[in-house]
Amino acid sequence: MTRLHGIVPYLVSPIDPETGAVRTDVLTRLVTDLVAAGVHGVSPLGTTGETPYLTAAQRAAIVETTVVAAGGRVPVVPGVVATATADAVEQALRYQEAGAAALVVIRQPGLPTSEAGIEAFYLAVADAVEIPLVLYTNPGATGVDIPFEVIRRLAAHPQINYLKDASGVTGRVLDAIVSVGDDLQVFSASAHIPAVVLRLGGVGWMAGPACAIPRASVALYDLAVAGEWDAAFELQRVLWPINQLFQRYGIAACVKAAVTLRGYDVGPPLAPQTPLSPAATAEIAAALAAIDERVAP
Amino acid sequence: MTRLHGIVPYLVSPIDPETGAVRTDVLTRLVTDLVAAGVHGVSPLGTTGETPYLTAAQRAAIVETTVVAAGGRVPVVPGVVATATADAVEQALRYQEAGAAALVVIRQPGLPTSEAGIEAFYLAVADAVEIPLVLYTNPGATGVDIPFEVIRRLAAHPQINYLKDASGVTGRVLDAIVSVGDDLQVFSASAHIPAVVLRLGGVGWMAGPACAIPRASVALYDLAVAGEWDAAFELQRVLWPINQLFQRYGIAACVKAAVTLRGYDVGPPLAPQTPLSPAATAEIAAALAAIDERVAP
Amino acid sequence: MTRLHGIVPYLVSPIDPETGAVRTDVLTRLVTDLVAAGVHGVSPLGTTGETPYLTAAQRAAIVETTVVAAGGRVPVVPGVVATATADAVEQALRYQEAGAAALVVIRQPGLPTSEAGIEAFYLAVADAVEIPLVLYTNPGATGVDIPFEVIRRLAAHPQINYLKDASGVTGRVLDAIVSVGDDLQVFSASAHIPAVVLRLGGVGWMAGPACAIPRASVALYDLAVAGEWDAAFELQRVLWPINQLFQRYGIAACVKAAVTLRGYDVGPPLAPQTPLSPAATAEIAAALAAIDERVAP
Amino acid sequence: MTRLHGIVPYLVSPIDPETGAVRTDVLTRLVTDLVAAGVHGVSPLGTTGETPYLTAAQRAAIVETTVVAAGGRVPVVPGVVATATADAVEQALRYQEAGAAALVVIRQPGLPTSEAGIEAFYLAVADAVEIPLVLYTNPGATGVDIPFEVIRRLAAHPQINYLKDASGVTGRVLDAIVSVGDDLQVFSASAHIPAVVLRLGGVGWMAGPACAIPRASVALYDLAVAGEWDAAFELQRVLWPINQLFQRYGIAACVKAAVTLRGYDVGPPLAPQTPLSPAATAEIAAALAAIDERVAP
Repeated sequence: MTRLHGIVPYLVSPIDPETGAVRTDVLTRLVTDLVAAGVHGVSPLGTTGETPYLTAAQRAAIVETTVVAAGGRVPVVPGVVATATADAVEQALRYQEAGAAALVVIRQPGLPTSEAGIEAFYLAVADAVEIPLVLYTNPGATGVDIPFEVIRRLAAHPQINYLKDASGVTGRVLDAIVSVGDDLQVFSASAHIPAVVLRLGGVGWMAGPACAIPRASVALYDLAVAGEWDAAFELQRVLWPINQLFQRYGIAACVKAAVTLRGYDVGPPLAPQTPLSPAATAEIAAALAAIDERVAP
Repeated sequence: MTRLHGIVPYLVSPIDPETGAVRTDVLTRLVTDLVAAGVHGVSPLGTTGETPYLTAAQRAAIVETTVVAAGGRVPVVPGVVATATADAVEQALRYQEAGAAALVVIRQPGLPTSEAGIEAFYLAVADAVEIPLVLYTNPGATGVDIPFEVIRRLAAHPQINYLKDASGVTGRVLDAIVSVGDDLQVFSASAHIPAVVLRLGGVGWMAGPACAIPRASVALYDLAVAGEWDAAFELQRVLWPINQLFQRYGIAACVKAAVTLRGYDVGPPLAPQTPLSPAATAEIAAALAAIDERVAP
Repeated sequence: MTRLHGIVPYLVSPIDPETGAVRTDVLTRLVTDLVAAGVHGVSPLGTTGETPYLTAAQRAAIVETTVVAAGGRVPVVPGVVATATADAVEQALRYQEAGAAALVVIRQPGLPTSEAGIEAFYLAVADAVEIPLVLYTNPGATGVDIPFEVIRRLAAHPQINYLKDASGVTGRVLDAIVSVGDDLQVFSASAHIPAVVLRLGGVGWMAGPACAIPRASVALYDLAVAGEWDAAFELQRVLWPINQLFQRYGIAACVKAAVTLRGYDVGPPLAPQTPLSPAATAEIAAALAAIDERVAP
Repeated sequence: MTRLHGIVPYLVSPIDPETGAVRTDVLTRLVTDLVAAGVHGVSPLGTTGETPYLTAAQRAAIVETTVVAAGGRVPVVPGVVATATADAVEQALRYQEAGAAALVVIRQPGLPTSEAGIEAFYLAVADAVEIPLVLYTNPGATGVDIPFEVIRRLAAHPQINYLKDASGVTGRVLDAIVSVGDDLQVFSASAHIPAVVLRLGGVGWMAGPACAIPRASVALYDLAVAGEWDAAFELQRVLWPINQLFQRYGIAACVKAAVTLRGYDVGPPLAPQTPLSPAATAEIAAALAAIDERVAP
């Protein structure tokens, strides 16, 4: 079983705005290029992938295309984005069947649920599949959280091996590492500072921006693994402005704009989202250029 | 074109917890009995209907069953529950085709969206169908709101005729009545006090509790229409404890418990929700009994 | 012991922006004119009074001036605005000594506090004085709330007789009336709709706007007391736009602007608040003029 | 002018719960011992000091006692805790007069304020004094924040030299360091991970827990200054559980419990706060013991 680690870009979902068709050729080229740039995995159907906006058919097409494009060279880790337990289990089985190496379980908020219900949701998915799961928490932006005592109990399940916290509150990451670090390995989100999470014992960075700056992201990870922390933190400061922009303008719209600037015709963010303004797009172009000067794209 | 008004119960979604099948016989009996009790419409696929937990196939089966059971005697007003504009339009067309008399448009929160994007979402649905729309706002529980200036502009569309605000902040209802009352007619939610909204000029009550107390709900509406306000407010005080319980224990779990107590085998709330405790169920039974003493069920 | 009821304006605090001195002459004239207009009490040191911005000396001067100006013709009901229990008790004793007829207890948020601590806070004040208390809740704007079970227990204290809820969620008012209506009488805030709260059994309206529209406010109350509800609700719709403006632009800045327009030189809102824009002031002037057409000021 | 840096404990406020008198002897001994333990400054009247619960007289006594006890060996950095601009300026002048070396400006939330008003608040304090200011932001717990553009402009003032962000969102710290790091030096709060903030370029840790673990806190800082990061992060993991407890049980109650365990009779948290339970106190005792094993107290 592959151990997940390193740079795992959350993929954008290239969709034709008129027909709703997945642009499989664009997605294939993006995944192929990311693998060539050295990323350690790819994650379709996350928040960056605008998954709540996608139909079941679009989701299936995206996973299948990604698995074929990755060609077994890196693990494919799709997001299971669901409100109902039954839907989560069904998605998990479908993506495992399609070749996913692991799954990020992104529970969607719904009606009020007891702690027992939350725990049962994750256990149902874990029991249904044979591949590892990444727990996902994001109390701020999406209101989805898992009480810490539940995380502690879920960590004992052999299939539940990773945690991706998108709160931006780095103390939560250290809580997990100190308390359940033997059972769960932690990934940084873009809301955190990847070099910091790696320094604290995290194993990688799952994030949308790596779609647009894969080589610089890999360089950061390599410095961390080599223990060259002064260089890692210096590079982190160079990369940080792109995180700032993505926080300010919204992750999916920003990554789509950045990837479009990189030459992939992924289309606009899905309606009712609206595309970035020209001014915001120019800010992103400038931030990318500053990073490119440091690490050739 | 029917003018929506009066008591419009939000229907629960009777689902077999093992198979996921819609219990069409239970739903048919519930709708038939509600119509016999005098309700003025029925609304499947709202929050009470646990719609975010339902697959597209389950939603379609519920609308079709409801339309057949209503048999043209009262309007069927399904909820369009969607994050993406394209999905909302598709649902709207499907439910119109299935015989819906109107639609409640319940936009789901997603990634950050501009005011223009929000407005375009509703206009896309309104332009796609020929039946009236009910706008839905619920800034507290679900985080879905529409800026007031957007409501004002949407109200000018010939298809956008009603507003259902579930905030519980009654001043918002009066804002709408004072500002756009000529274009939009207002329904009370259970978070509001129906007698109050009717007194202020509202046209009815769309709400889950009416599944369990349809005759008492119709009695309240009839008193309001007759201008017998002292009696209406006195009855409101008798009915209010059921709203209090539904606020405390969660709307879908409560209405399913209450409707089960009334003899309809609608099943438990959909996982990961968990059923009410026996103590909470007993509180609901007591509240129903107190209402039954006043208005025979 | 006076029973509080009717229109009780929350007074603005006229302060010289250069010296910090209370403009006692302006405050005296305002109180005198309000009493002449028929209000049933006056309440200095509430939210409208910008109390958290005032020193202990300013607060004392305001209560003393108000008591003298009221001259025993109407009760003076100052706000006790405090974070610490000891400070609340001290203020309560000082204002009772100065001639207050009752007190509004406006606990300020501080560090996290247990339910027992919250209950003890109110009991300490109630036990210290011999005049009645008004409980104040405002979960939205100021984050100060009292758990409902605590309200229920506090209501049993002989000195705790009134509740002023500023949430805008009218169901909370009905909760109180249905559950503890025998022990606590309820006042409407401006966030609620006064005619609605009176219709549900409330006893009056404690609010900043009545500083600027006292005669119209008293007219509304008189219609309600006379049971002329159609006329009361019609007048309410005429008055409502002033509430809308006050919600939009902030209560203290708005009431100071409105009272200044009425000819009282109360000064700007206290820094770091900033005065209303000329455009917002013009909106308020227009709303006042529309009300004046209906009820002569 | 002293450059603030290193470990600056937020002091608890030892108050006799019966009389309200400041226990100046306890405070003197605490400050003396902290200085002997090597701390680089002391900060009375912060959140840990329960400042919103204190009268002006209590605040003055605490600053004076602290200045005398510090005896010029380390800078005293009191908190200016105020809602009104005038009050903030008055406190700032009073504490400067009493011997403060710098001030932490902790604006308290009040009525809605424009961005210009917020900026003017800080400038008024900065213009009034001749000692440096620390800006304080805490959007979560206290709802006090400063828009980033305002921070950027304030940073240009010669007196505004430091930023203490208590959000726990470490990306905010990096935002400041990357954007205004030449003008503002950054301190870690306990909600952050001090070793992380130091690694990113922060200059110290202002925090309540250092009252109870001063030598361990200084050891962490010394390792960071020496560039011994592996050892610093290892020690950070040993210290982290005390931060977890303080987050869980509330900062002031926890620090008072911890300092009491250390032998200083600082009294209970100020009412309406309630003391920690025996179980929580035992958890704190265990966490202190675990740290003591590593760094002798």
